[in-house]
Amino acid sequence: MRNTRKTVGEVGEFNLIDRIRKILPVSGNRDLIVDIGDDTAVIRIDRKRALLLTCDIQVEGRHFLFDRTTPYRIGRRSMAVNLSDIASMGGKPTYALVSLGLPADMPVESFHRMFEGMRDEMSVFGAYIIGGNLARTKDELVIDVTMVGEVEASRVLTRSKVRPGDRIFVTGMLGASGAGMEALRVYGKKVPRKYAELVKRHVLPSPRVEMGIRIGRSGIASGMIDLSDGVAGDLYHICEKSGVGAEIHEACLPLPEHIAEIAEKCGRSVRDIALHNGEDYELLFTVPPDVPERKIRALPGNTGVPVTEIGMIVEKRAGYRLVDALGKKTRLRPAGWDHFRKE
Amino acid sequence: MRNTRKTVGEVGEFNLIDRIRKILPVSGNRDLIVDIGDDTAVIRIDRKRALLLTCDIQVEGRHFLFDRTTPYRIGRRSMAVNLSDIASMGGKPTYALVSLGLPADMPVESFHRMFEGMRDEMSVFGAYIIGGNLARTKDELVIDVTMVGEVEASRVLTRSKVRPGDRIFVTGMLGASGAGMEALRVYGKKVPRKYAELVKRHVLPSPRVEMGIRIGRSGIASGMIDLSDGVAGDLYHICEKSGVGAEIHEACLPLPEHIAEIAEKCGRSVRDIALHNGEDYELLFTVPPDVPERKIRALPGNTGVPVTEIGMIVEKRAGYRLVDALGKKTRLRPAGWDHFRKE
Repeated sequence: MRNTRKTVGEVGEFNLIDRIRKILPVSGNRDLIVDIGDDTAVIRIDRKRALLLTCDIQVEGRHFLFDRTTPYRIGRRSMAVNLSDIASMGGKPTYALVSLGLPADMPVESFHRMFEGMRDEMSVFGAYIIGGNLARTKDELVIDVTMVGEVEASRVLTRSKVRPGDRIFVTGMLGASGAGMEALRVYGKKVPRKYAELVKRHVLPSPRVEMGIRIGRSGIASGMIDLSDGVAGDLYHICEKSGVGAEIHEACLPLPEHIAEIAEKCGRSVRDIALHNGEDYELLFTVPPDVPERKIRALPGNTGVPVTEIGMIVEKRAGYRLVDALGKKTRLRPAGWDHFRKE
Repeated sequence: MRNTRKTVGEVGEFNLIDRIRKILPVSGNRDLIVDIGDDTAVIRIDRKRALLLTCDIQVEGRHFLFDRTTPYRIGRRSMAVNLSDIASMGGKPTYALVSLGLPADMPVESFHRMFEGMRDEMSVFGAYIIGGNLARTKDELVIDVTMVGEVEASRVLTRSKVRPGDRIFVTGMLGASGAGMEALRVYGKKVPRKYAELVKRHVLPSPRVEMGIRIGRSGIASGMIDLSDGVAGDLYHICEKSGVGAEIHEACLPLPEHIAEIAEKCGRSVRDIALHNGEDYELLFTVPPDVPERKIRALPGNTGVPVTEIGMIVEKRAGYRLVDALGKKTRLRPAGWDHFRKE
């Protein structure tokens, strides 16, 4: 059947996810708080607690390259991106299962280092790998991680309850990972020392688990998502799910040091890197307009992670737009990372 | 690093799992009832309930071949093998996450049918797919399923509490899947009608979920495992974990109709197919000697699934042996399926 009619590569990731939604039945199970569509499923355990379940499959050559990083970092990263999904629900990560598809010629040494990386990333958050499975592939390393977390059932933050007038905030800096990636592309192994922090943000993201829990527990947010595909793509998921529009203020984007130099060097705009590059693994969350300012200012506590307001949720008919420093509004391209797009 | 020193293909699956055990810390979390080593992790939810988590990664060419089956059956099968892991703990399956690595040239039609198969297999047991993730691979289809289940915490059946004197039972027939596989190999697409049931057992195993729950709830079993690698390999996992030996009586093995004809046709012994072939996805469980016979006879209820006694657990020093019809004992090769072995 392989060579007839349309292929999955032609229709793309989001079309396939739509198809899955149509094939699968609505569960009718009232323990299921959040179903397919969010990156993380939420299942009620009892009156107070809910279980979080998320998975992420990463393939060598598409999600990481052996010659650009180390097995240890690949291991850490594979956990970090899943920890970020738990963080985006305001949850505490607890356990992970790891499935690996291994090419037979992978050195045992690399396998060992990769697992050490996984263990170390989990231990930062007091979470454990408790199971998994191994299989052999022809020539690609495939890492599939299922992450389990827990959250207070009354504090679950989803994508579907955001309303016009809600203010939009992000943690940390935007475009750091993208700038780091471009620095690696431009300079190869000779990246100047001053860009080391950007490169680090690219190869080893820090999931915002503590901030996610703080935002969830504060009870002030109306929605939250982690930034894996870029602000422009991820915020759009919230807009679709909630039936709203959004305006992002370009001048408000929190930018990392040196991003302008790198943008010039690689011939892209700072805006493009900050909005469309993805993999920052920061949190984007929305706060209704009547929430007192002091509650928002209290969010970072002593985490050292800044929180920055970058725009506002608007009516759907007002569109999805970027507002520049002069107040001029242009359409914001809602492009997210599609794992089936042509390279 | 790819081409230096030992490779994962050289050291094999079980060596890699041992390495993982050494790398990962003991969790020290008392909610974790069963950790790495069993196929299924068990986490205490509250005083009465425990959560079951298991995953299984399947790769095209190793676990299934597109030209020997259909996308719909591949979908059903990918769920069935995970449902079997939940069954082996006496649990009720509840939810699944599905991660797919898709080659870009896979027809959308096949993708669609595969998901229908997954849905249908889950719905047999009132369980739902609630999340997942897609990525692109070069040319292999990779299916990784994480299955979630629930069980009474006091009824969890593991591999480590089996004692000498315990009687060994299996559900259903042994070697049916192996005989079906050999029939396909010998006859290709022209398999005689009389072997249809064997072929069906190979391409579409029936996980023994109901029997697993019945055995768990009966409270009479000391241990249980599902037969994915063959009796000889899977029973050995119990022996290792419990520090015991075992004797299997060849004359007691429940064999499916026509297996002798197929064994002759493919030049293997019936014993070899029944003990070493794997993928029957029946349950093997042990029962202490003081359990009344009527409780064992009551296990099948009206499921129509036979339960057969095939041997006994012995002291470790008595070894791991097969007893033939004349009472002669030979060493039982504990070979399980190794996903890294040379083909």
